[in-house]
Amino acid sequence: MLKSGGRALLLIGCPEVPVQTSLALYLCSRLRMNGWEVVVAGTGAALKLLEVADPEGHYLSETMDLDDCIAKAVEGEIAFDICFAFMHSDAGVTYGATISSISSARIYALIYGREAEKLAEMVEYDCEKIVAKAVHNPAPLKIRLDKVMGWAA
Amino acid sequence: MLKSGGRALLLIGCPEVPVQTSLALYLCSRLRMNGWEVVVAGTGAALKLLEVADPEGHYLSETMDLDDCIAKAVEGEIAFDICFAFMHSDAGVTYGATISSISSARIYALIYGREAEKLAEMVEYDCEKIVAKAVHNPAPLKIRLDKVMGWAA
Repeated sequence: MLKSGGRALLLIGCPEVPVQTSLALYLCSRLRMNGWEVVVAGTGAALKLLEVADPEGHYLSETMDLDDCIAKAVEGEIAFDICFAFMHSDAGVTYGATISSISSARIYALIYGREAEKLAEMVEYDCEKIVAKAVHNPAPLKIRLDKVMGWAA
Repeated sequence: MLKSGGRALLLIGCPEVPVQTSLALYLCSRLRMNGWEVVVAGTGAALKLLEVADPEGHYLSETMDLDDCIAKAVEGEIAFDICFAFMHSDAGVTYGATISSISSARIYALIYGREAEKLAEMVEYDCEKIVAKAVHNPAPLKIRLDKVMGWAA
């Protein structure tokens, strides 16, 4: 079970896979309930998908541009205790590697999409891998996430 | 501007296109704010994407299986004042045609994805078409929807 409180980062890349928006909002909800301050860093389209899905702002709080976030983390201007790196492509794996090399945050790699298993093999940095072939159905990934985080019903 | 109140149906098919979940939750929020009772009928994966994205139930209320909904509408067991039919494929166009032929609801066809314009030409039943090539960025479709509904900021 994850301890409560602290600062959490969600790193969200290109939104090609439908499960991404749903899992990101779910994570925002669960983390906030557990006392975490959550920042979501994403590409323009990824953030827009989240904002439109949460028009009354119940789940999302702080958002920032993905590249700005990486740049600020490199400069030491921002820091996090934990980071959830969403990945369904090489780009996602690379963003995760970058944050892993510049941050002392505990990293959870959420790996999904058709190539999930192949991508998981590419992730060689120190992190907790949460892997499911989910593309359209978020349930397999949510079940694994809940188990790792100790959120299982 | 759409009048307030009544019973609204959102018809949601296979969730291949990421904008669908975001737009559906946005519609739930706006319609409920305007006094509408909203039912979302969708495929299993489409509903699961909505439920995971709204874990605290701020936007979603009643949901039902897409085929059950059509069957009950055919039998006259359920009725709606307005219906938003989401479509990014032939299947979506067909569901819209079915509901149009069995219901007196005013129909809004939300047509999106890479083939949006081609699909729009296939929609020959009486409805208000809201068309945008949106796949990953929900903004173009949201802007057109807001304009048609009189929700523009």
